[in-house]
This record gives sequence, C-alpha cells and structure tokens, in this order.
Amino acid sequence: MSYENAWLTYRMRQDSRDKKYFSKVYAEDESIVAVTAVKELERAGREILGVRMEQAGCAAEAGICLRLVSDPAIGEEGYQLREEEGCITISSEGARGLLYGSFALIRRLQMELPLEGLCMLETPSNPLRMLNHWDNMDGSIERGYSGNSFFFKDEKVIVDERTRAYARMAASVGINASVINNVNVRGNATKLITEEYGKELREMSEIFAEYGIRLFLSLNFAAPMELGGLDSADPLDGQVAAWWKDTMEDIFRRIPNLGGFLVKADSEGRPGPFTYGRTHADGANVLADAAAPYGGIIIWRCFVYNCQQDWRDRKTDRARAGYDNFMPLDGKFRDNVILQIKNGPMDFQVREPVSSLLGGLTDTNQILEVQIAQEYTGQQRHVCYLIPMFKEILGFHTYCCGGQDTVADIVSGRTWGQKSCGMAAVANTGNDDNWTGHDLAAANLYGFGRLSFQTDAGARELAEEWAACTFGNDRVVTETVTKILMMSWPAYEKYTAPLGIGWMVNPNHHYGPNVDGYEYDRWGTYHRADHLGLGIDRSRQGTGYAQQYRKENADLYEDIKTCPEELLLFFHYIPYTYRLKSGKTLIQHIYDTHFEGAGDVESMDILWSSLEGKIPERVYKRVKERLEHQKEHSKEWRDQINTYFFRKSMIPDEKGRQIY
Amino acid sequence: MSYENAWLTYRMRQDSRDKKYFSKVYAEDESIVAVTAVKELERAGREILGVRMEQAGCAAEAGICLRLVSDPAIGEEGYQLREEEGCITISSEGARGLLYGSFALIRRLQMELPLEGLCMLETPSNPLRMLNHWDNMDGSIERGYSGNSFFFKDEKVIVDERTRAYARMAASVGINASVINNVNVRGNATKLITEEYGKELREMSEIFAEYGIRLFLSLNFAAPMELGGLDSADPLDGQVAAWWKDTMEDIFRRIPNLGGFLVKADSEGRPGPFTYGRTHADGANVLADAAAPYGGIIIWRCFVYNCQQDWRDRKTDRARAGYDNFMPLDGKFRDNVILQIKNGPMDFQVREPVSSLLGGLTDTNQILEVQIAQEYTGQQRHVCYLIPMFKEILGFHTYCCGGQDTVADIVSGRTWGQKSCGMAAVANTGNDDNWTGHDLAAANLYGFGRLSFQTDAGARELAEEWAACTFGNDRVVTETVTKILMMSWPAYEKYTAPLGIGWMVNPNHHYGPNVDGYEYDRWGTYHRADHLGLGIDRSRQGTGYAQQYRKENADLYEDIKTCPEELLLFFHYIPYTYRLKSGKTLIQHIYDTHFEGAGDVESMDILWSSLEGKIPERVYKRVKERLEHQKEHSKEWRDQINTYFFRKSMIPDEKGRQIY
Repeated sequence: MSYENAWLTYRMRQDSRDKKYFSKVYAEDESIVAVTAVKELERAGREILGVRMEQAGCAAEAGICLRLVSDPAIGEEGYQLREEEGCITISSEGARGLLYGSFALIRRLQMELPLEGLCMLETPSNPLRMLNHWDNMDGSIERGYSGNSFFFKDEKVIVDERTRAYARMAASVGINASVINNVNVRGNATKLITEEYGKELREMSEIFAEYGIRLFLSLNFAAPMELGGLDSADPLDGQVAAWWKDTMEDIFRRIPNLGGFLVKADSEGRPGPFTYGRTHADGANVLADAAAPYGGIIIWRCFVYNCQQDWRDRKTDRARAGYDNFMPLDGKFRDNVILQIKNGPMDFQVREPVSSLLGGLTDTNQILEVQIAQEYTGQQRHVCYLIPMFKEILGFHTYCCGGQDTVADIVSGRTWGQKSCGMAAVANTGNDDNWTGHDLAAANLYGFGRLSFQTDAGARELAEEWAACTFGNDRVVTETVTKILMMSWPAYEKYTAPLGIGWMVNPNHHYGPNVDGYEYDRWGTYHRADHLGLGIDRSRQGTGYAQQYRKENADLYEDIKTCPEELLLFFHYIPYTYRLKSGKTLIQHIYDTHFEGAGDVESMDILWSSLEGKIPERVYKRVKERLEHQKEHSKEWRDQINTYFFRKSMIPDEKGRQIY
Repeated sequence: MSYENAWLTYRMRQDSRDKKYFSKVYAEDESIVAVTAVKELERAGREILGVRMEQAGCAAEAGICLRLVSDPAIGEEGYQLREEEGCITISSEGARGLLYGSFALIRRLQMELPLEGLCMLETPSNPLRMLNHWDNMDGSIERGYSGNSFFFKDEKVIVDERTRAYARMAASVGINASVINNVNVRGNATKLITEEYGKELREMSEIFAEYGIRLFLSLNFAAPMELGGLDSADPLDGQVAAWWKDTMEDIFRRIPNLGGFLVKADSEGRPGPFTYGRTHADGANVLADAAAPYGGIIIWRCFVYNCQQDWRDRKTDRARAGYDNFMPLDGKFRDNVILQIKNGPMDFQVREPVSSLLGGLTDTNQILEVQIAQEYTGQQRHVCYLIPMFKEILGFHTYCCGGQDTVADIVSGRTWGQKSCGMAAVANTGNDDNWTGHDLAAANLYGFGRLSFQTDAGARELAEEWAACTFGNDRVVTETVTKILMMSWPAYEKYTAPLGIGWMVNPNHHYGPNVDGYEYDRWGTYHRADHLGLGIDRSRQGTGYAQQYRKENADLYEDIKTCPEELLLFFHYIPYTYRLKSGKTLIQHIYDTHFEGAGDVESMDILWSSLEGKIPERVYKRVKERLEHQKEHSKEWRDQINTYFFRKSMIPDEKGRQIY
C-alpha cells in the first residue's frame, strides 16, 4: 500500500538563499539517532533546496554542524539552533536532541523562515510524548477512521517501509514513545509479550530506536492465566509475581529497546486486580517490580468506572469514578508506574471539565491522555482541530498549589518534580494513503506531537506550521486552512451536544446525533432532559462531583452563577427559560448555536472551495467530499437536536426558523 | 446436535382403552406419503400405547384403515376420521390427507380423547401452508432466536436426521411447503439454483416429499447477472428471459419436487425490476413464465417501501407503500404468481391494522404473511403467543364484497376463487434442542400450522392442544400453560409501544425499549411525540393511508371517535389529555397499561413456578430462566416508556407510582 508524506511533503524551493548551509554537514555523534538526523538533513537539502549534501571533514568546513554538548539547560532531548557566520550549529546533550533540532531546522526550511542569525533553544515540555494506537492484530483499529492498521494484519506483526515512515513522521514532531496495540488486549494480542512475536517486535523496536522512539505494548492483566496456565492473576499471589518476573526478564532480553507497558485493568470488562479484592496499586506494582530491573515503565489507565449503571439511579456518577478509585492510592505506586488520566472525567467529549484527578493527585506520576482519534468529534469525516481544546486543558489552573498549578505544569513534572510523566494521545492513524483519512485530521497528529514537545506553542501557530509544511508555503492556502481549522472545534461544539452535557450520539459507533442514544443505557452518560430543562446536578445537592476539585474550582462549579457557561449543563440542571450571560434563554441558545454551527460548516466549505487549484487535486477532492458530508451531517445534527428540544419544551424559536 | 420432539413428545399411557385400534393397520395406498402415515401410526401405537402394530391382510382385519376415496368434499388434503365397530377409517382423496388424518388421530391419542364413535371431517382452509425460513448459508439465521440453521452450515446444505425430524414436525400440523433460505439472497445462496447444490437439495426435497411438503427456494432477482454473466437482469430483456427459462428447466429437472420460488425484490436494497424501469408484474411474470411448464410457483413479496425516508418529511408514509406499489398491478400477474402480503402495512409490530392490500386486490393470488419468529415481540426470550393476533387478522372484515370478505376468506381462495393462495409464516426455528429457543414459542409454530390448516380453530383450543401434546395430558399443566399463553400477547402489547404506534425498539436488532430509536431514522417509522401528544395522522388531513381501505373501514379509521382504540395512535395524533372510552386520559392509559403489563409478567412467572416438578426439569428451568429475564425486561420497558412520556408531558401519574 502506498502512503504520502503528510507534513513532511517537501517541495523544491525556487530561491537559493539557504543552499549554502546544506552543502556540508558535520556530526560529532555517530549514534544511530544522530545518523538519522544527518540523513534527514540530507534528504531535506536534496528535496527542498536541490543540494547534494556532503559530509564535512571537520566542523569548520560545515554549513550545518551537529554537536554534543554538556549543558543541562538543553538536556538530552532539547536542542539549540544557532546560525553564525554561515554555519548552523545544532547542539544537544543527546542524539535525540540533535534529531529534534534537525527536524526543527527542516521545518523552517519548509516554511522559508530566515536562517541567518537564527538562535533558538527548545527543550521538551514533557518527558514522555506518546502515541497510543488501538490497533488489533486482525488489522482492524478500535475507533480507527483511517483504514486498517499498519502494525498488524492477519494476526501478524508488520515490519516494512511504512514502519519507518511512521517513526520518521512521529519523531519529526517530537514523539518519543509509541504503544502499538489496543488497550483492550484480547486473543493473540495477549501473546505479544511471548517469544511468538519476539523477532518482529524487536525489528520494529530497532526501527523506532533509529528515530529515538521507544516501543510500548498494551498488556493483558490476565496473561498469567491465559499464557501461564496459572489459575489466578492475583497480584499478591507469589506465583503470579514470579510469572511476571520471568516474563519481563524474557521480553526485555528479547526487545532491549522496549519502554514498558500500558494497562487497562478493571475497565469495561477488562480483567484487573478487583477480581482478587486487590487495589490498582497492587496490580500496577507487581508489574512495575518485575519491569524495574530493565528500566521498564508501567502506564496504568485511570479509566475505571461502573459500566453497568442503572439509568434510574441518580446517585451514582461516572464522573466521580476516576477520583473515587485512584485518590486513595496517591503515593502508593512504584516510581516506575505512571497513571494515565483522560483529560476529562467522562470520555473525550467535545467539551468536558478537566478531570478532578489532575490537581488531585500530588504524589503519583501522571500522564494526560487526550484523543486525536476523533471518536466523538466527527470521526475524521468532520473537520475538528483539537489543539485549541488541548491548549485549554493544559492551561487549566487546578489550584493544587500556589504557583505552577496548571495541567501542563503537573504532567510536565514541574509541579511535583516527577520525571516519569507527560502526554499521550489515542492516535488517529491508519493505513490510508494520507495516514489520517481526513487530510485535515493530520493537523491533530502534528499538533499533538508539537504541543507535547512545546506546550506553550499556540494552536493557531501550530495550524499555520502544519498547513505550510503540508501544502507548501502559500500564504493564501495557509491562512485559509488555518481559518478552517480554527473555526472547526467551536463549530462542532455548536452543532452537537450543548454546554458540556456531551453524548447524544448513536450508541456503540458513536457517530451522528441521537439525543436519547445513551439516555436509558448503562453507561452513566445521561442528560436528564424533560419538559422544563436539562443537565446533571453535580453540585453538593446532586452527585457532588464538583466537590472533587480544589476549593477554588469547586466553588466555581458548585454555583450556577459562577459555573463557566460552556460547562453549565455538565454541572447543573438548567431550565430552558434560564437566561445566559448573553441574555438569551437556554433554549434559544440551543437553537441559535445549532443554526450557527451548521452555518459555520457552510463557511468552511466555501473557504475550502476557494483553494481549488491551489493544492493537489486528489487532496482537494478528498477533503471536499468530506466537507460535503459534514455540511449535510451538521444539518442532521442541528435538526435532530433542535427538534428534540422543541418537541420536549414546546418553546418556539424566536427567529421562527424551521424546526421539525 | 441433539433435538427434542416438541409436541410430538409421546408418553406411554397407563390405560389400554385404545390399544385395540393400533394392533393392525391396513393401507390401501402404497405411495411414499401413505407409507409415512403408517409409520407414524406405528410409532405412536408403540410409544403411547405400547402396541406393536402389524399390517393387516385386508381392511376387515384392521383396527385402523387408510382408504383412498373419491369424495370432493374431502379432497386430496382433507381427511375423514370415522370409528365404527372397532375400526378407525382414515379416508382421503390423496395420500397427504391420509397423513394429516393420521396425525390428527395421534393427537387425539396424546390428548386421550375418546376414539369410539369418532366421526370428523377436516379439509384444509388454505391451499398453501408455508414456512419461510430466513436461514443463511453460513448457518446464521436472520431474525433467528433459536440457535443456528439446521438447513445450512459453512456454506453447505445439510441433509441429516434433523431434516426428517423437521419435515415430520411440520407435516404433523399441516404444513405443505417450506422455503428454506433467507429472502435476502446473497453470496452463495444465489447459487442454490445451480447444479452446485443440486444433489443435496434433491435429497432434502425427497425427504420433504415423504411428508407431503414441497421445497421452495428464495431467489436472487439479479441471478442472471451474478450467475449468468449477463449485464442486465431486465425482465423484458430477451436474453434475461431465456436465461431464466434455461435455469428453470435445469433446476426443475434436478429437483422435481421443487415447488417454486420466493422473491424479495426492490426492497431494502435487494435488486428488482425497478432498476430497469419495469413493474413488479414484469419482474414476477418473467420468472413465472419460465417456471410454469414445471408447475412452479413464484411468490412475490409486497414488502416494498422507501427505506431512505427523511424523518423531517411528514408526507411520505411507509404504510401506504404496499398498496401504492401493488394495487395498480392487480390482475397483471400470471396465474402461477402469488403476492405475499405481510399482515400489516408496516412490519410485524405487536399491533397493526390489517394491510390495505388485503381486500384491495381482487384479481391476484394472495398469501398472508405472518411472523412467528418473534422479531418485534420478544425474540423468544419473552413469552408472546401470537395465535390470538392471527385470529384477529384472519377474522378482519375487509368489506371487499358482500359475504365472504374476511382475510381468512381472501387468502383461502373462497372470496375470489383462487387456487394458489394461503398463509405463510416467517419461521421461529433453529438448531436449539427444543427447536424454538423458548419452549413456549413452539406454541406459535404449532398454532400457525394448525391455524393455516383449520382457520376456524380457536387460539385457546390450539394452546390447550399444544400444551397437552407437549407436556402430557395433565389438566393443571394444560390449564396453567394455556393461561400463560393467552395472557402473553396482551401483556406484551401493554408494556411496549402503546395503541398501535409500534416501533420504540432498539434499531437493528429490534430488542428492548428505545422510544426514539427509530424517530430520527430513515425507515419511515415514527411516533412524532411532543410535549402535547403523539401519533401519526393517517386520515385525509394527514398521509391519507386510512383512505386505502374500503369505505366502511376507511370511515372507521378516518374518525378519531370511531377508530378502534387499540389503533388510535396508528391513525391519529392524540393529545395526552384526550379521554379514552375507559374515561382515562391517554397519558394515564400509557402509565396504567405499562404497570399492568409488567405486573402480568409477574403473574405469568408465578403461574409457571407452580408447575415445578410437574414438567421435565430441563424444560422447566429453560422457561423459568427466560421468565426471570422477561420480568426484569418488562420493567425496563415499563420504566423507559413511562419515563419518556412523563419527562415529555410532565403530567404526573394519578396513582403516584414511581416514574423516573
């Protein structure tokens, strides 16, 4: 299967301004990652500048010089780029820093930014910058919208040219860890930790290693039973611990570049320590102890809740579950365990408050998990650029301490001094030619990587970078694409579930509107709409979720008057006649935003149409086709939601528009 | 796989009253069907009376005598049973009549009814008495709730002991035709008409023939393209007609006992004549002409409607589609074409009016199609004895003529003198030990067969017969089981969608409540509930469906005042505050019936529990387990429906019961 180069699409430049730098390169380091860096510079020089780059005999002769330095301010993954007297020096304490610096330089080349006098220092915001692929061994991808897996097919591990292309693309934006298999580990995927798949995984890990990426695997907590023939997976059972010890020894011997494991336990039917009356700390620690001698990390997901809830029960609140389950365990996990926490307390809705665990936990390694696979945000058939959402999440003040208290501070390690922490994204890739199905969805992959490396980058800035690298440095194209991207998340929010209530999608596949789709189901995801209003009371009088936050936020959310309006229905039951700060009633707000959102998609479509002829036709058409669908589908959303609430409230639209 | 004998479960009787008849049998006919009849009598004598039956040398020596007579009042499938001076004579003009008479006699034996002085004459009400199996060649069954297919497995036709057991069971209640494959003909099923499956189908047809049953196949209208390599399936294309002619010649030569074909065309994505701008008559007739030389029959389903409807469109009405599509074609079909018409205009809901085509068509052969596979009526996890519903349908006066104007009259041929007509049921069997998953669901299979043979039999009478034959002749058991059966359909109607509105189920699988499940979908199945009321206006002011009936019924349905209340919401939009004849408001009726229905299931469960020890334990437990589920599930129905309408109307329950 063929594939394209996404934002690494190089175009020959007409000017010769920067050729001088790319004629000769000198690298002080000969490690595999440094070799990769040099290769990438050579390729960029050839394909963008038409220069055949040669190795210089010494630094003095070189136009680009890769230097290993000893400078804690740069560190092993940071880099300094400096142009002086016709030579660009890329410095780092480690080879990965040299690689990231090289890609940063190439990016400037693509964007035709000046190199003369260049002087920049970047260090990664987060130690771990991960992609989580939910790929199954049969080649399918759970929540995949871009074709099938390029890691697995027919129960086999695939290692081919695309493996390298993937690693290259991931490294180019700073990704340094990748979990290749679905967190729901079933069937043959359980055996990925055995000898059976050892050879291929080692090969893959070595290709990853060339790009500074560590391979991670998702793990089946019940493996001691399924593989080991034990009659228990109890983490406190000596036999189980011994089995894990042996298993870890084997796999780290087979795959020395393995980073560790991701575990979904006691969640949505997956096995876990609860079966044996043990805690998540017990469960994670037995794995951590076994993996520790090899530097292995155990990433334990906090997505644990009762998925057999009765819709009639208004006391149980799924939003509370993460905090209720994990706060009592703060400080009880080994140093090489990291809790991976979804950004919100529910599940990747278009709008959620930040998870109360972030800012709650103080003595536990944490990873922020976001989802760029657009499960609930249009499944890569709708444009929905998620970086502005991620920026809001990262910038959220948890008030966990005076000073560095944002989510970005916490997961970077700045707040509590942790070394094992960072960001992970459920990946949106597949074996489609363009990697992400929707060409514009690649902006999420790009943006996530860049943001995980440089959290203070702006959403618009990243969109522009991505557009320029992907479509070439044409200002009209860049501005138009950026405009579409920047309006896409607000538009999606407007025409789908209002004011933080979420859900209202078709069950199972989660695509398209269905207001009552989950209302009478067992998943804890309700809107409780009736003739008078809707929303979930999560204040003290209700489920009490708001009180899981630090006082400042708890107070804010507790009170309807101070609760941020975009989260109003998440925290409160609100009458349709309630007046928002805009002066509009809630029901009128619902009608208006839904008409607006669908209108925004029309605008996006017009904007895109203006690019015909300015970008490759196959790309233009792929996106155009999806926008046509999005136009229709956003109207379906608009009409179903508006009709549902009109039929329920019987309050007419003030503007007299068509509601069915 | 093992199987049980359902209502042909014989138990040794303690008395010796009837032994004398079963010691010697004499049969005038030696055809295969008559041989089957004798074998069945022998088996019953042995297993019920402990008698070893012998062949008598002449009629005078026999206790049972099978006689071929010439008597048009009896006919080839009718029979007379007459006891005189210690000899029971079974008379018929044909061997099938002898077989049906034998089974009728055996039934009396099972029920311990007196044989002395017996004198009865039965002729089948309907020429065709069919089962339609929706079995796929991979072994799955569309809308199957009793395990997998016993006709197909792994793309092969199965012919084994169960084939015979099936034919025997079907024949015992008067079935004389069986379509073994799904009406949605895809993949290898298209090839069932080719040589590839000829041998096995012939074998199967020969086993069926022993029991007087003709094998039918469902047909793919696009077969000329898929099998014949033609570039069209246009029924008016000479090449297509020639292909069908050759194909029919081949298959009827291979399978002489083949009865013909069932066709679902231009329906829910199936190919058909519309593709070529032809009518259904064109489509059916090309097949009919090709099959006619071999006595083959083409059964053409009338289930044709727009399944891509826009929920916002209130003009299009799926209920109208059958009539709109087929009435203009009345009289245009060949003599060997039969239109198969679902009982209602929608799709096998728990309550629908009778299809307007029944009584509309006057010059077309017609089959009434009902569904004993409980797709919308509890999927053989709920008890729902459907014979009372079928009785209502058969007894419905269409006013198509003065005199014999009921549905029973029409499909029997009495009204318009047709010879090719009758009843068909979508079958509820599978390879579960007990054939129907739920043991009590077998009453629908039994009852349908018996009713198709003897339409004037009562629903209660058939329930009692079935219970006595299945569980033995214990009056307490029979009465209790009959009580459960007779209350089951009304209970199901009470706790599911109210007053004929239908649907309100989960999409696709159709199990369990989901009030808005189809409300914003493309299937033409809406309830249009809002804050003030619900229902579809199908009067003149609305979609006009009511006017498709003959004047008497059209007037009845047109007017809210005269419309039968059980169909009120099918024909009219009714405010929640509307007072029904009971004096209750509509909303209170909804609340009350839902509490009642769930309460009825509790009663059914108590009734069943009283039978513990009185029926075989494995049967008791199988049913008990399902009743436990039905109890919970009927409460889920109750609560979802009541909550939905309470939240929408905000009118409280007068009795203050718990609504969520």
